[in-house]
Amino acid sequence: MLSTYFAEHKERFLNELFELLRIPSVSADSKFKPDMRRAAEFVRDKLTAAGLDNAALHETPGHPVVYAEKLIDDALPTVLVYGHYDVQPADPYELWNTPPFEPTIRNERIYARGSCDDKGQFYMHVKALEAMLATDGLPCNVKVMIEGEEEIGSDHLGNFVAANRDKLKCDVILISDTSIIANDVPSIEAGLRGLSYVEVEVVGPNRDLHSGVYGGAVHNPLNVLCQMIASLHDEKGRITIPGFYDKVDELTPEERAALAEAPFDEEEYKRDLNLKAVFGEEGYSSPERASIRPTLDVNGIWGGYIGEGAKTVLPGKAQAKISMRLVPRQDPDEITELFTKHFISIAPPTVTVTVTPHHGGQPYVTPTDSVEFEAARRAFREAWGKEAIPTRGGGSIPIVALFEQELGVKSILMGFGLDIDALHSPNESYGLFNFYKGIETIPYFYKHYAELKKTGVEA
Amino acid sequence: MLSTYFAEHKERFLNELFELLRIPSVSADSKFKPDMRRAAEFVRDKLTAAGLDNAALHETPGHPVVYAEKLIDDALPTVLVYGHYDVQPADPYELWNTPPFEPTIRNERIYARGSCDDKGQFYMHVKALEAMLATDGLPCNVKVMIEGEEEIGSDHLGNFVAANRDKLKCDVILISDTSIIANDVPSIEAGLRGLSYVEVEVVGPNRDLHSGVYGGAVHNPLNVLCQMIASLHDEKGRITIPGFYDKVDELTPEERAALAEAPFDEEEYKRDLNLKAVFGEEGYSSPERASIRPTLDVNGIWGGYIGEGAKTVLPGKAQAKISMRLVPRQDPDEITELFTKHFISIAPPTVTVTVTPHHGGQPYVTPTDSVEFEAARRAFREAWGKEAIPTRGGGSIPIVALFEQELGVKSILMGFGLDIDALHSPNESYGLFNFYKGIETIPYFYKHYAELKKTGVEA
Repeated sequence: MLSTYFAEHKERFLNELFELLRIPSVSADSKFKPDMRRAAEFVRDKLTAAGLDNAALHETPGHPVVYAEKLIDDALPTVLVYGHYDVQPADPYELWNTPPFEPTIRNERIYARGSCDDKGQFYMHVKALEAMLATDGLPCNVKVMIEGEEEIGSDHLGNFVAANRDKLKCDVILISDTSIIANDVPSIEAGLRGLSYVEVEVVGPNRDLHSGVYGGAVHNPLNVLCQMIASLHDEKGRITIPGFYDKVDELTPEERAALAEAPFDEEEYKRDLNLKAVFGEEGYSSPERASIRPTLDVNGIWGGYIGEGAKTVLPGKAQAKISMRLVPRQDPDEITELFTKHFISIAPPTVTVTVTPHHGGQPYVTPTDSVEFEAARRAFREAWGKEAIPTRGGGSIPIVALFEQELGVKSILMGFGLDIDALHSPNESYGLFNFYKGIETIPYFYKHYAELKKTGVEA
Repeated sequence: MLSTYFAEHKERFLNELFELLRIPSVSADSKFKPDMRRAAEFVRDKLTAAGLDNAALHETPGHPVVYAEKLIDDALPTVLVYGHYDVQPADPYELWNTPPFEPTIRNERIYARGSCDDKGQFYMHVKALEAMLATDGLPCNVKVMIEGEEEIGSDHLGNFVAANRDKLKCDVILISDTSIIANDVPSIEAGLRGLSYVEVEVVGPNRDLHSGVYGGAVHNPLNVLCQMIASLHDEKGRITIPGFYDKVDELTPEERAALAEAPFDEEEYKRDLNLKAVFGEEGYSSPERASIRPTLDVNGIWGGYIGEGAKTVLPGKAQAKISMRLVPRQDPDEITELFTKHFISIAPPTVTVTVTPHHGGQPYVTPTDSVEFEAARRAFREAWGKEAIPTRGGGSIPIVALFEQELGVKSILMGFGLDIDALHSPNESYGLFNFYKGIETIPYFYKHYAELKKTGVEA
């Protein structure tokens, strides 16, 4: 029985995850390249051990994709599990209470880079499949694809998918890389924002100058960059880039009312983040601002003297990383172009501005009345004894839109994280409860999905 | 004869300066503390070797002051030479074409941190005094005070001067720590701007957040900081801090006309800095903006992810270093207070703002019709065969106002640098011509000063 298997192998599941978390598989930094391969090989070996077939590394011009499958019956539907074994950089290291690549349990949580995003989450699938294969067997065919470039834009996965359409043919894609509302309020993400990410550089004089000798007569690139960035929002918190909102659909009052049913406690939100006040686009609630509305955030800024003490320099250039979260119908390439055109147009004649795009991602919406979504809903109902609320997430998984385009199937975002997991931040963590509860929930998805596909019962 | 002595010892003068430049006497960084002492001892020993008496290190709670003197006759006037043996940090090292503490000559210029500011300049005095003592003797009493904390605000020199008023008693202070207009257009600085320097911190959420999950609903401290900084100037390039201009005196048309006589070629200025256009407060010329008008410059800004690639972080805080150059009657402490009050008042309710003052400095003006100024003018006339133009400098030497207050005497700013020397920047340099011409000019100051004091002839 599954529950017995889980109980007997619980500790090993965690030890294996710890082994994986100890590998610093940071895709963004080439010095971790050997670790990336080690992580991929680890995943391959565990898929084989779980009982899947043909587990192998597939080379790309970047980091390898790990693929495995268990095809049991042509007549049964096929689920493709997607995840990523790469993690965000762990900088700044000094802000971690324990080393990012030495997983540690405190307060029933696993602290480590990637503990939730996405090692802890995709590894639940590996263990759920192992348990199913070792006990009652699989009710569907299964394909597993774990990539190594999600945190750097999945640059080579598009080609891999396009070149392997037959191999990856499936009826639904199952992904655990998102969050639920709370451990007593399960939810399923029915939408994701897209992403446009740019790096900007403002160059003034050809060298750093003495601010006493030149200050006042030479336009300071740091002041200029601040002015340019400040002008990207108006006083109502709206983005001022011409055309930016052209393809943003307003939700109907009914749709907004449905979303508003998800519990949200603003006081608790403020307390958790130690915020004095929330802020965002006028006319929208905090959950709306973070999900159904597009945004523009400075992710990093630097220039001039940033060491200790005072240095009276008028720097030659200023730089920033700026990203925009996009909602359905906003195209990342189009938005990047609008941004670039606008940003260059608002530059004063004293400076030279360069905009360099990083990877982007398409926004995504899943219909909540599909067989797939209903299967996920029933899985939560059975495993958690509660109804899962459909939500619209603020983050971006760029590859989801690509899957739909290349493979013609929808993705189910059945993630088990929490807002407090601190993804991409120091002290990322993942609840032990979430790890084990996820492993327990996944087999129910297969069961209900197979049943619903057979009986054709719609939600 | 002086000229013969100079010719015979030219190479040694330069070799000694190189020795001094090789000592990385960065006062701002405690890891260079042993080098600070080495530099002070080097200066002490060279003052002794030059023939001065009582050369010694005087301890302070920070870096030591080097003092020496040659008192020849109570009836003669006394000149106090001031300079500093500390230098600015050399960061960023990678932008130096040759190592900052390995002086190198290229195109008749000495490249090294401190080559001009101020080792190259104060060392001219040490060598000029050596030459005078070795040949015709001194026409005045001389006191030499070389400090080690100019680049960090001369924090302990004030106490040292106050505690040694008798020892430092003098008729004029002679300082070479400023620039001339060009090698064929000598000039003397008749005024300096003051300085208020602050560090600001804008804190939002208690940790770095995922910009997808929180973006739009949590006010981003980087965006906030940019908006706050942007609002510090209006569209006419004026500073918006209430009360900032209250004590700024407008120069009379005659005074402005006199300053405008100093040659200034805007096209050459732009070419030198590779500027597309100049910019500054409406209604003022570039030289005026950089001298008789106060300014506000961001000297450094940082926050969020500043490494390679893209990281979708909504950072918990943003920081900047901001300095204001002040003109006569603007008090640094008062301006720092106005800034702090204003900056905190414009912070949105979503963030917590902290303003930390660094050292400041009083603005300063020297009358151009004094015996001292006339002595400097005559020294240039005799050594350069040209009239020196009185200018108003943009930089700040905070200690000059303190000297006037504590010792009751004016300072003559007889510097020999050039705008192209790149003070405080990578690849700081000092012209060989300027080094040698400075050594040659200094004895003429003593000669004319002694004569003018004796005869009482005014300019």
